[in-house]
Amino acid sequence: MARRALITGATGFLGGHLIQALDRDGWTLTALVRSRERWRAAGPMPQRVEVLEADLGSDAPPSGRLEAVDVVFHLAAAGTHHRPTDTLEELLKVNVLGTQRAIELARCLQARRFIYLGSCAEYGAGSFLTEDQPLAPRSLYGISKAAAGQAAQVLGPQAGLEVVWLRAFTPFGSHAPAGSLMADVIHHALEGRDIPLTAGDQRRDFLYVDDLIEALKLAAVHSQAAGRILNVCTGRETSVRDVVDLILRVMGHPVRPLFGALPYRHGEPGSVSGHPGNARQVLGWTAKTSLETGVRQTVEWYRQRHHAAAAALTR
Amino acid sequence: MARRALITGATGFLGGHLIQALDRDGWTLTALVRSRERWRAAGPMPQRVEVLEADLGSDAPPSGRLEAVDVVFHLAAAGTHHRPTDTLEELLKVNVLGTQRAIELARCLQARRFIYLGSCAEYGAGSFLTEDQPLAPRSLYGISKAAAGQAAQVLGPQAGLEVVWLRAFTPFGSHAPAGSLMADVIHHALEGRDIPLTAGDQRRDFLYVDDLIEALKLAAVHSQAAGRILNVCTGRETSVRDVVDLILRVMGHPVRPLFGALPYRHGEPGSVSGHPGNARQVLGWTAKTSLETGVRQTVEWYRQRHHAAAAALTR
Repeated sequence: MARRALITGATGFLGGHLIQALDRDGWTLTALVRSRERWRAAGPMPQRVEVLEADLGSDAPPSGRLEAVDVVFHLAAAGTHHRPTDTLEELLKVNVLGTQRAIELARCLQARRFIYLGSCAEYGAGSFLTEDQPLAPRSLYGISKAAAGQAAQVLGPQAGLEVVWLRAFTPFGSHAPAGSLMADVIHHALEGRDIPLTAGDQRRDFLYVDDLIEALKLAAVHSQAAGRILNVCTGRETSVRDVVDLILRVMGHPVRPLFGALPYRHGEPGSVSGHPGNARQVLGWTAKTSLETGVRQTVEWYRQRHHAAAAALTR
Repeated sequence: MARRALITGATGFLGGHLIQALDRDGWTLTALVRSRERWRAAGPMPQRVEVLEADLGSDAPPSGRLEAVDVVFHLAAAGTHHRPTDTLEELLKVNVLGTQRAIELARCLQARRFIYLGSCAEYGAGSFLTEDQPLAPRSLYGISKAAAGQAAQVLGPQAGLEVVWLRAFTPFGSHAPAGSLMADVIHHALEGRDIPLTAGDQRRDFLYVDDLIEALKLAAVHSQAAGRILNVCTGRETSVRDVVDLILRVMGHPVRPLFGALPYRHGEPGSVSGHPGNARQVLGWTAKTSLETGVRQTVEWYRQRHHAAAAALTR
């Protein structure tokens, strides 16, 4: 069955993966982007994706053809765990008011369902967190993501939308932004540089990007998902130290990890992992990719890109 | 022991009560107000209160003498349950960014403690709610109050502040703003007009203002309160219908309540009441005023004001 979707954050790490996956499945897609230049710079995308230009952080109306859709995937957001430099004002503007604008746009496009991609940062800290845990974010990013999800829950139904709030745990994979743990470690290793790291005892629930994309797709179609908040996580905790060791083992130990060379970030939680029971029950979803398989595929992608870049330089 | 405090929202319903109470106790006070005109219009206030002019919704620095304080009581906020007309943008600006600015100001004034006055609207709905309930606000106001409290918890400790987050349930008493239930019912009754109301089955935890002020004072001095979230509530649920009937009984049934003449507000929760156990344990606080006593004192204040206004008109 052909379906139509609008994707915000289309030029980001997860947006790019989602567009490729939905296009393969035969969806009709519109990418919401801040500018066509950003879209072209984001790399090769399927030709048949329509592009709509809008800045969800501003009041300006979108520019482009408004085509009705079934689903809006709202992935656009400012700030991350890894980049705590955004101001609270910017985070509220882009993430919370941006979600309000995405809902208004979803109504204009006659969407039935609105998928809000939230974050484990909304919880703060804890092991095997369930969705009914109180939210105690440790970062301004987490505060803004929680408020944006709540805004979707209040405003979405008023706009006639079924809202699904997915809380993604630590995603990794190809195209991850610089500053994320795995991207940084792999870059250092490919360039033969030892890697300055924290002590690495913090434990996270690392989720391979393909599994997250599968959850997004299922959230768009499962009728029981309407109105739910669902953790998207593996339910396994791994320390940063163990992940770094795994990456370096997969890569043949080209460099040394310098554990303890960096301090922990202010307020950095010891453990952040989720319980995936509700996503399994509601969506029939589980994370299928083992950490080692995910790491191998991620390393392979960065390695090919690194070799291609090196070849281009020496040509 | 003499103590010094800054109070934001000093010209509001609760701010006025707090200033009077702290002044009686011998505190040295600074009122943060948007303008001196507002301060003068707020009615007679203790002469010795210093006034500092600042708009927490804007970046402009405060104007007035900066005196060091021990405690900041942050009561300033936009929007209420009763006035759902504020935009999300305004609520985020005044409530969330305003809290960030209040924390910056508290740091400049070398405060040790920051009391954030939150709201039961942060919870959404539920009976005998405890502080570890997940927050599922039903209103944009509730979303902004939750995010502001979370911002205080993240930013306060970075600024060297002990943060206490009080969640006040439905406060009532003299000087309550027009639009709040009791003020409206009493006004109608004093003017001899029948009162259009909802069906009145929604249940609330009505808290007399003097009890709330007592909790604020205790939160400023109890060492164990640092870092805590505490419900300020009676732990009793009363339906709107029963409260209206009580007010009209106290007033001698001058008019009729028209239950069902108005629709419920969109998303209006059935029950909102809190469990006061943690406030009792941490602050040694309980709500001492019975609903009937509080209603009698509130009615008496409005009646005197009404008679004074009527006398002024006929003079």
